[in-house]
Amino acid sequence: MRTIDWQSDHIVIIDQTRLPHEIVTRELRTVPELVTAIRSLAVRGAPALGVAGALGVALAALSTADPVAAAAEIRAARPTAVNLAWGVDRVLAKLPLGIPEAVVEAITVLEDDVRLNRTLAERGADWLAARVPGRINAHTHCNAGALACVEWGTALGVLRSLHERGRLGHVYADETRPLLQGARITTWELAEMGIEHTLVVDSAGPSVIANGLVHAVVVGADRIAANGDVVNKIGTYPLALAAARAGIPFIVAAPESTVDEATPDGSAIQIEVRSEEEVIEFGGVPIAPEGTRALNYAFDVTPADLVTAIVTEERVIEQ
Amino acid sequence: MRTIDWQSDHIVIIDQTRLPHEIVTRELRTVPELVTAIRSLAVRGAPALGVAGALGVALAALSTADPVAAAAEIRAARPTAVNLAWGVDRVLAKLPLGIPEAVVEAITVLEDDVRLNRTLAERGADWLAARVPGRINAHTHCNAGALACVEWGTALGVLRSLHERGRLGHVYADETRPLLQGARITTWELAEMGIEHTLVVDSAGPSVIANGLVHAVVVGADRIAANGDVVNKIGTYPLALAAARAGIPFIVAAPESTVDEATPDGSAIQIEVRSEEEVIEFGGVPIAPEGTRALNYAFDVTPADLVTAIVTEERVIEQ
Repeated sequence: MRTIDWQSDHIVIIDQTRLPHEIVTRELRTVPELVTAIRSLAVRGAPALGVAGALGVALAALSTADPVAAAAEIRAARPTAVNLAWGVDRVLAKLPLGIPEAVVEAITVLEDDVRLNRTLAERGADWLAARVPGRINAHTHCNAGALACVEWGTALGVLRSLHERGRLGHVYADETRPLLQGARITTWELAEMGIEHTLVVDSAGPSVIANGLVHAVVVGADRIAANGDVVNKIGTYPLALAAARAGIPFIVAAPESTVDEATPDGSAIQIEVRSEEEVIEFGGVPIAPEGTRALNYAFDVTPADLVTAIVTEERVIEQ
Repeated sequence: MRTIDWQSDHIVIIDQTRLPHEIVTRELRTVPELVTAIRSLAVRGAPALGVAGALGVALAALSTADPVAAAAEIRAARPTAVNLAWGVDRVLAKLPLGIPEAVVEAITVLEDDVRLNRTLAERGADWLAARVPGRINAHTHCNAGALACVEWGTALGVLRSLHERGRLGHVYADETRPLLQGARITTWELAEMGIEHTLVVDSAGPSVIANGLVHAVVVGADRIAANGDVVNKIGTYPLALAAARAGIPFIVAAPESTVDEATPDGSAIQIEVRSEEEVIEFGGVPIAPEGTRALNYAFDVTPADLVTAIVTEERVIEQ
């Protein structure tokens, strides 16, 4: 089953807010439905957002009078992952040629994602397998697995490819507060793949690294600046600091569409700040005294000098 | 109101598992009741554990036939904070002189805690006030406030002393997964003191530091090794890495009883591993797929070279 797919005239997604307790698919037939799904993280993960942007413009072409305006709404649904805008723009460029051409381009983006992910995952697995002998224990953060993409995954795709080769050991996954994508989704994917894994709170990740439990950190990315600074889910930066201190590789696995040559460095990237409720409530129950304010950065910036290698479907960028 | 106190022949505590929703005091009249309170974190915080150990031996002397055996049980209730053993041993040394002498010693430990905390807090405030001009914004982790002690607090005591001098700006507090001492208790104490504050998820702390929102990190400690390595609540180490990278002071505020000269360095300290349920459940509700395993380190080790200064009631140890 694909995380996001196209069916004749609408989008079908697995609703990731319901995992791991239920596997619910949802049909998105209008642009507002898609925008809501993106904002609520029912569809999430940079590669999947790229596909959502592309399919969204096809949906806009078929269902609205002004697809260019609708595309602008989709583009603005989340600000940090560059893939969303990239997917929108790629299909928007075909729209003057006609609606069928736009739909074909959107489906091409969808199918490409599967192929590109598989390619970059194999390249990442090659890189690690050549440098770490025996079974490789890895640390990952958030979810950069099949559910963040269409299929296969980026960071988790690298681990999956190592697993297929019999070269993967144990995986440590951060829970990824506030929305627990690691606890809910990454553990679920790892279990489905039969990969041994252990869940830790985010703040324990640097100790897992310092204590020598893993050979490498492998994460995805939401945007990579021209200088190699990496924006990824909040909590990635502390792992990079800990990996540098421990002298183990810190690997970023992401498609080329995540690389934003127009952005010079991490300081130029708008970091999404999400609602305070995500932090001060848990499943609707307050966890802090009434009136407590929270700052909810959705992403952080890992400076390029802490990144050992960025692996895409086309290349390995070593710092 | 004191977090922990002595009343004629028993201990009274504020049950910290019930905060911030309820302020419930509990009477502990037997050693098993005390051991359960310590294990469940109803009484927590290194200085408060020192007092609990001391009062516990007084309780054992009054309520058991074999106070030495009972003292050993209290001593073993939690392994990482050295203060617990220190409090037990201090009163145990007076027991051969008679029960009244043991009770007087226990009460002395209790009263000393208030005075020592106030002294170290003022010293920490002096240190920061001399180095950071204007109002000081600070980051803290877990709870090293009045509720971790008898009164006043260590790390939060430093901030409280700065606040009294009109030199404190904004405080950023980590939620402190898995048990949320920061979200539940630190925010509550800061609000009570009228200190402006913002809650963040633990993994956002390093970004708060990298983004220049704070001038210093101020934390407590559960044990300090002879070489200056600091053991404190899980999540402290990433803040120290981020503070070093940002070039801001990382300050540890703790009483001398936390310094363990018998332990050469952090690697020799037993790190408590708590139950998996604390990570995989939230308020009894599973947050991860059934069968998910977790590793729940309660503490981490911050190497001495990342610690700018350790402030006690007697001295400032600068690295």
